[in-house]
Amino acid sequence: MALFDLPLPELRTYRSTTPAPEGFDDFWARTLDEARAAAKPVELTEVTTPLRGVTTYDVTFTGFAGQPIKAWLNVPAGATGPLPIAVEFIGYGGGRGLPVDWLLWAAAGYAHLVMDTRGQGGNWRGGDTPDADADGAGPSTPGFLTRGVRSPETHYYRRLFTDAARAVETAAELPGVDATRLVTTGKSQGGALSIAAAGLVPDRVAAVVAGVPFLCDIRRAVTITDSYPFQEIVQFLRANADRAAQTFATLDHFDVVHLARRVTAPALLSTALMDTVCPPSGVFAAYSELTGPKEIEVYEWDGHDGGKAFFDTKALEFAARHLLGEGRGA
Amino acid sequence: MALFDLPLPELRTYRSTTPAPEGFDDFWARTLDEARAAAKPVELTEVTTPLRGVTTYDVTFTGFAGQPIKAWLNVPAGATGPLPIAVEFIGYGGGRGLPVDWLLWAAAGYAHLVMDTRGQGGNWRGGDTPDADADGAGPSTPGFLTRGVRSPETHYYRRLFTDAARAVETAAELPGVDATRLVTTGKSQGGALSIAAAGLVPDRVAAVVAGVPFLCDIRRAVTITDSYPFQEIVQFLRANADRAAQTFATLDHFDVVHLARRVTAPALLSTALMDTVCPPSGVFAAYSELTGPKEIEVYEWDGHDGGKAFFDTKALEFAARHLLGEGRGA
Amino acid sequence: MALFDLPLPELRTYRSTTPAPEGFDDFWARTLDEARAAAKPVELTEVTTPLRGVTTYDVTFTGFAGQPIKAWLNVPAGATGPLPIAVEFIGYGGGRGLPVDWLLWAAAGYAHLVMDTRGQGGNWRGGDTPDADADGAGPSTPGFLTRGVRSPETHYYRRLFTDAARAVETAAELPGVDATRLVTTGKSQGGALSIAAAGLVPDRVAAVVAGVPFLCDIRRAVTITDSYPFQEIVQFLRANADRAAQTFATLDHFDVVHLARRVTAPALLSTALMDTVCPPSGVFAAYSELTGPKEIEVYEWDGHDGGKAFFDTKALEFAARHLLGEGRGA
Amino acid sequence: MALFDLPLPELRTYRSTTPAPEGFDDFWARTLDEARAAAKPVELTEVTTPLRGVTTYDVTFTGFAGQPIKAWLNVPAGATGPLPIAVEFIGYGGGRGLPVDWLLWAAAGYAHLVMDTRGQGGNWRGGDTPDADADGAGPSTPGFLTRGVRSPETHYYRRLFTDAARAVETAAELPGVDATRLVTTGKSQGGALSIAAAGLVPDRVAAVVAGVPFLCDIRRAVTITDSYPFQEIVQFLRANADRAAQTFATLDHFDVVHLARRVTAPALLSTALMDTVCPPSGVFAAYSELTGPKEIEVYEWDGHDGGKAFFDTKALEFAARHLLGEGRGA
Amino acid sequence: MALFDLPLPELRTYRSTTPAPEGFDDFWARTLDEARAAAKPVELTEVTTPLRGVTTYDVTFTGFAGQPIKAWLNVPAGATGPLPIAVEFIGYGGGRGLPVDWLLWAAAGYAHLVMDTRGQGGNWRGGDTPDADADGAGPSTPGFLTRGVRSPETHYYRRLFTDAARAVETAAELPGVDATRLVTTGKSQGGALSIAAAGLVPDRVAAVVAGVPFLCDIRRAVTITDSYPFQEIVQFLRANADRAAQTFATLDHFDVVHLARRVTAPALLSTALMDTVCPPSGVFAAYSELTGPKEIEVYEWDGHDGGKAFFDTKALEFAARHLLGEGRGA
Amino acid sequence: MALFDLPLPELRTYRSTTPAPEGFDDFWARTLDEARAAAKPVELTEVTTPLRGVTTYDVTFTGFAGQPIKAWLNVPAGATGPLPIAVEFIGYGGGRGLPVDWLLWAAAGYAHLVMDTRGQGGNWRGGDTPDADADGAGPSTPGFLTRGVRSPETHYYRRLFTDAARAVETAAELPGVDATRLVTTGKSQGGALSIAAAGLVPDRVAAVVAGVPFLCDIRRAVTITDSYPFQEIVQFLRANADRAAQTFATLDHFDVVHLARRVTAPALLSTALMDTVCPPSGVFAAYSELTGPKEIEVYEWDGHDGGKAFFDTKALEFAARHLLGEGRGA
Repeated sequence: MALFDLPLPELRTYRSTTPAPEGFDDFWARTLDEARAAAKPVELTEVTTPLRGVTTYDVTFTGFAGQPIKAWLNVPAGATGPLPIAVEFIGYGGGRGLPVDWLLWAAAGYAHLVMDTRGQGGNWRGGDTPDADADGAGPSTPGFLTRGVRSPETHYYRRLFTDAARAVETAAELPGVDATRLVTTGKSQGGALSIAAAGLVPDRVAAVVAGVPFLCDIRRAVTITDSYPFQEIVQFLRANADRAAQTFATLDHFDVVHLARRVTAPALLSTALMDTVCPPSGVFAAYSELTGPKEIEVYEWDGHDGGKAFFDTKALEFAARHLLGEGRGA
Repeated sequence: MALFDLPLPELRTYRSTTPAPEGFDDFWARTLDEARAAAKPVELTEVTTPLRGVTTYDVTFTGFAGQPIKAWLNVPAGATGPLPIAVEFIGYGGGRGLPVDWLLWAAAGYAHLVMDTRGQGGNWRGGDTPDADADGAGPSTPGFLTRGVRSPETHYYRRLFTDAARAVETAAELPGVDATRLVTTGKSQGGALSIAAAGLVPDRVAAVVAGVPFLCDIRRAVTITDSYPFQEIVQFLRANADRAAQTFATLDHFDVVHLARRVTAPALLSTALMDTVCPPSGVFAAYSELTGPKEIEVYEWDGHDGGKAFFDTKALEFAARHLLGEGRGA
Repeated sequence: MALFDLPLPELRTYRSTTPAPEGFDDFWARTLDEARAAAKPVELTEVTTPLRGVTTYDVTFTGFAGQPIKAWLNVPAGATGPLPIAVEFIGYGGGRGLPVDWLLWAAAGYAHLVMDTRGQGGNWRGGDTPDADADGAGPSTPGFLTRGVRSPETHYYRRLFTDAARAVETAAELPGVDATRLVTTGKSQGGALSIAAAGLVPDRVAAVVAGVPFLCDIRRAVTITDSYPFQEIVQFLRANADRAAQTFATLDHFDVVHLARRVTAPALLSTALMDTVCPPSGVFAAYSELTGPKEIEVYEWDGHDGGKAFFDTKALEFAARHLLGEGRGA
Repeated sequence: MALFDLPLPELRTYRSTTPAPEGFDDFWARTLDEARAAAKPVELTEVTTPLRGVTTYDVTFTGFAGQPIKAWLNVPAGATGPLPIAVEFIGYGGGRGLPVDWLLWAAAGYAHLVMDTRGQGGNWRGGDTPDADADGAGPSTPGFLTRGVRSPETHYYRRLFTDAARAVETAAELPGVDATRLVTTGKSQGGALSIAAAGLVPDRVAAVVAGVPFLCDIRRAVTITDSYPFQEIVQFLRANADRAAQTFATLDHFDVVHLARRVTAPALLSTALMDTVCPPSGVFAAYSELTGPKEIEVYEWDGHDGGKAFFDTKALEFAARHLLGEGRGA
Repeated sequence: MALFDLPLPELRTYRSTTPAPEGFDDFWARTLDEARAAAKPVELTEVTTPLRGVTTYDVTFTGFAGQPIKAWLNVPAGATGPLPIAVEFIGYGGGRGLPVDWLLWAAAGYAHLVMDTRGQGGNWRGGDTPDADADGAGPSTPGFLTRGVRSPETHYYRRLFTDAARAVETAAELPGVDATRLVTTGKSQGGALSIAAAGLVPDRVAAVVAGVPFLCDIRRAVTITDSYPFQEIVQFLRANADRAAQTFATLDHFDVVHLARRVTAPALLSTALMDTVCPPSGVFAAYSELTGPKEIEVYEWDGHDGGKAFFDTKALEFAARHLLGEGRGA
Repeated sequence: MALFDLPLPELRTYRSTTPAPEGFDDFWARTLDEARAAAKPVELTEVTTPLRGVTTYDVTFTGFAGQPIKAWLNVPAGATGPLPIAVEFIGYGGGRGLPVDWLLWAAAGYAHLVMDTRGQGGNWRGGDTPDADADGAGPSTPGFLTRGVRSPETHYYRRLFTDAARAVETAAELPGVDATRLVTTGKSQGGALSIAAAGLVPDRVAAVVAGVPFLCDIRRAVTITDSYPFQEIVQFLRANADRAAQTFATLDHFDVVHLARRVTAPALLSTALMDTVCPPSGVFAAYSELTGPKEIEVYEWDGHDGGKAFFDTKALEFAARHLLGEGRGA
């Protein structure tokens, strides 16, 4: 893979030129208010797994419009006293899978809530949460980027971002959890949700980890890469040449750049210079808007799997510094 | 492309080994009854186009569960007296597009009703009909084959097949139409719907044209081709290894082979021996079940675009023989 | 597909830097004179089709050097009085196919002459016209761009462009046609011929429609795309590294940019920004040379199928404004 | 992906037709004796990681010819009393990576020794062990199937299989480990090594887990798939047409089928019917030779990632039944 | 590449089931007679090259219908006395290139006549011979397999096979050549021509070398491979579904199997079991018809470059045994 | 292929910005001294081939650290008196193959020494020389770019460059050779070695021919192309993100740009503007450092096979001018 986006020095100063859509804050405030108004109590059921060192709960909480959302909660077996908690979001196409898929944060001593992704889980890891919305089911390119794209009200990511914010609120109220030490985390779509949730409920989040985040600087991304999922937008506009303005007007409401602006917690991002799925200019566009302490890991040679276990290790170290009081001197 | 399915002589005697699921007829009878119970009157609005020789109406009729479905009705300009009517269904991923996309049947002297495909139209020709169903929105592989696959009740094709049957019923009642001369037609997914509709409302259909029909002998198809959309099923089962039996139990309800058995009208099918999208064994499996007079065009060298204008010409000639009283001697 | 050519603002002012070859006008004047001197009367034979609304004629007229060229003539059935006429040229590799392939312009009320493409029709739609020339049969890359490329005299496109000009002259003299209302039309290679014919016989053409035209600004195109057919030139030069100058000297005679300069009729062009087959800078290079009233449709997200039915509709509306006196106010 | 190997019923009875090479047992006995004669004491150094729930050691033990081999040892933090131990081997091209890569077995309550793969670790996860038949032959981007293929003595897999057997012997002697409860595990190349080690030191191994094992029935595999790494052999023979007999004579010494015959421990294997990397007939060929209690998970729709977390869960449950005394009733 | 054709034991007994077309011998007798009647004297011009050990002549002889065909003649510098001569034909798409391209046979002590391929030389090695035929220029798929395919009289390979026969006749009459020691040679299309020429003028040819010959058992080949050039036929039939019978009736005249039957000279063929361009069943079909002494080299792992220098060496050794009297004992 | 590197005018003035590593000259002086100290006498064995015009010797000389390296020596049969000699190096992945592979320079009147490439010969032409830093590291399917990359001392190309220098020294001392007329030659990796050898033993080399040389301006190359073998470096760094600085520090020792600076002999290079394997900016970077008379052939349309026989002819003419005293006037 050759480099394809801006040179690294230009990336470091790059900013998106797309303004937040009018009424952006109101849109989200109203959406969250409605979700909270419809909320029901979280349900936890312990499940049996072959993992002796981890206790797992099957979680159901309420997300967008009070709809039920599944999650796994993995807790170090035998833990006592309030635990810091990591709320994790999943990459595009996958669902929450099985408890054995999620061992990193519990091994590091955290309670770990892994939110299922509504409607996803048909592509590479199974899911259990329907996208139960009748209003947003207009014609779309297969995939999720254009589901309900005719209006921000009906767009898929309105529902999913809201689920993510609600997952944070839910996590903070779980028994045995120290609500002041909550980190959001995820990669790709999960990284986008990690930032988005921190922007939607900033007072709930003490640290943000976002690997190669998706959905950043969308209008530029679709012109510089032919990779999916961004290519879904191009495919949709090819079939619907008359709906380009409307489509982008909707998508602007879900550009992570605009929610990054509201993040105040310390944040660790990563980007990979050969990542055509989530181009680095988008990641830097989001990074430049963060208002709290921030760090970015740049993987010069990686593609979309940028950093892998190197970044996982960095993420745990970052969280330990901010939530566990470790390594402050480093 | 090399040949990949059975040799032609074996194809000609091939039959599917998958039985119809228990309660199959009841399932469809109940589904259609509910749709009819919820039906509302069709709406037609004339639209302006640059086509002087064709009069176009924007049509809204009610399909599954009384939900609104869009269509175009193209009629030869200035036609008087009752016209034969062709009801056309569209291939996978496309929507009804624009009136200029649909000129064949009006040029041949038919009223021509082109049903939009719910939720589709994001891939290669725009659509205008949402798939407005909240119950069937469970996790799925992007695309439509696994949408709502956890139960026949919630599966996408339950809704779409019902729309197709309702399109036929609607067409038969349009003003200026001779309900005794109705032909269903389409290619690929459109061919599947053409057969399915004729199997669901057999008394309404005087002739069936189905080019390279999709959704035939599904259980076999997924083992002999790696082409989409059938590959969606494989992709789904890779993420959901524990749901294979349930998935196929659902899909059996939408295997065109079982509806072909109920078709009594004269039918013209086509298949292409190098078509990996809709493998020829599936087409022959459906063909062998048809109980009325039947013909099949075999394109030995074609892929999924089997026959193209050769088949269009055959289709018009076939319809003319059965609906216009032409060429009976041939 | 990412954007790959100049940004849109730069495209809008882009001009080719390749001058017309010396003797360009004489070359074409001589070529047309010879074709006219060898011309024979057009032959029309009505053919039977299943299209009740269209009357079809199998046409043979004389093109380059008096050689016979096939065409279809589709006329609205029962039309009386002189009709406007559309002369259509076909994309690369296809032939005139079957009458049912060509319904758009007759449905809009035009006589419609579809010129077969000599030697083509082996790739995606059958043809009936040989490229009967012995002098231009030197070694070439399979395809037509380098057939006879050692000299402008023997090059394939000398023959084809002449056929196109002769098709226009033939159309203007058909019975029942209003020669003052003639529009040339086509996409890709057909778009190139639409412009070329209008530049070769400008007094015969009242309007030009050219979708994503091929053969524009050839010297630049071969350096910015690896798509076929332009890639044929690169492939030829790889086998014939010593013939680059000669090859381009020949091709300059068939660069549509130089014929666009001679077009005075109103023209509608289209381009797609992700079209690697006919890159947008070439289309704008041709567009900028047109001397009559002109419009260009830019499809920002499309590839080489730029615009599809959206552009067909635009084309009919454009022709209606200029030939039918409709919508002048728009 | 279509099915490409034998139908499942035939797979279940398939046996390889390639006999073990003459002197096979002696070859391995001699090789192991030499390795043991050159063995040096294992070295363990605790390393700092951000994993609070896991204690990690950087391990160096001696493998083939006494050469130093790296490994990670992950132990549940604070564990007391002898632990069962899992010895894991890695898939083709990857190295031992970082401690956070290996959390499954510690989370299930095992000591977990992850053997680095000599010379590998240049492709998808870094490695730290040179293939020390060379001063400068440290980890590099591969091929390994034909490294040293001119003789079984010099072949790469002679060294690697010996390392694996020595890893088992080393694991059994680690402090805090219950040597009677040792399971070998791995996927693909790791699965091959898991079986091979159990065949080489059968008295040391209480259970075997091998997901989609590589290197089974090699002579057949290279004729039915064009996937790498098996394709390396084809590529080598294309350049060295005169060395086919010698090449296969060497490779026969490393065909897992022949070592499977010596495995007496309970074994769990998996195969995926669409796995072109390690074709299912090879897996069944190995499976059929196992002489102890055995189970095989068949993933009908998966490719080479067959089973994923479903198989991980199965593997832990299988190991628990055989090593932890759980679920014997199931 | 996996094996894709018949297993080797079945290949060894495979015979084509397509009979020679009626009038086959007359067709060729008449064609050759006409070529001879129109023949003109060969022209040789010495050319300067940097090769001190080789003397090169630019040759023009007359082929089909007396048309001029170019060739290179390379002779060992300073050779005296009559030399054995190799007549070489070139693979599909290439031309005679430059004298430095053809060193093998002169280095082995032969005069070496390399025939240019009419119309080819645009794809990978330049050519200098036009395909000067006006009658066979009907619509075709780019490439040569369908050029003039509407009749055996006009088909491209009628002209090329005749050129090849005439090249042999020309070579036999060159000064300084021993006409009794003439070997035809070539690979792929060149191998087809090597056999075809030996079948057309059997009394002129003392030995035949044909590597991976093309054009054998054409009707089967197009159903078992999707590689070009055979795929040109499929592509043509897709555009011309109504011309399949005619197309194959023409191609039967150029199936090398039927000319192989007339070859009496000793022959060496090669085939590669993973060669999808010229499938092995076709090669064996031709091989089985040869009536003289014959050998076949089977490269089990190769694709279309089967054997490479191994086969070149075999070919020289074979020719030496039959033409130079060497190694008869071997 | 579109142009992808700098425009030609910028290429002509391009210079690498990477400085030679500290101690570069010492590193190579020491390495060569060690090789010479360990040198043993060359061994030549005449071998039988079917080439009557060429006498072939199987050569073994000592390269890096006195290790044995194979070569072919082809000499015009019957040559008397001292001959000029060409020392040829081979492209990436191939070995010395067979004597019939190497006919060009002998046909031009040169002794021709073709050095085998240690460890290579597993990919497209067989080899016979192990990379004898390992007992079992014989020829294998590659990668070599990262073999031993942790230090310049252990890197594969330290050994191979030294072999090349030693091949030149060996050639100069062969009986029957005129040591004052020695040309190094090769393409791709062979071109890199041709320059490198001339830079390492500049007093031994009278002329340099390097077609599309590899390993030039490595740090830039890996950012502008995704072709192999350069992509091996990217792949390695993806698995070893923590070793990028070390990797490039090692590779700098083998960047041909730094050895080009030491070449004083007349040199002919070639580059192809569409060559993604060895990008043109690298070739120009090396070319600009050459201090003797120099020429560069630019193939504007070629890929990595740039120039083919055109360049072979140029190369012989260039060598003739400098070594044979021909064409000095040209």
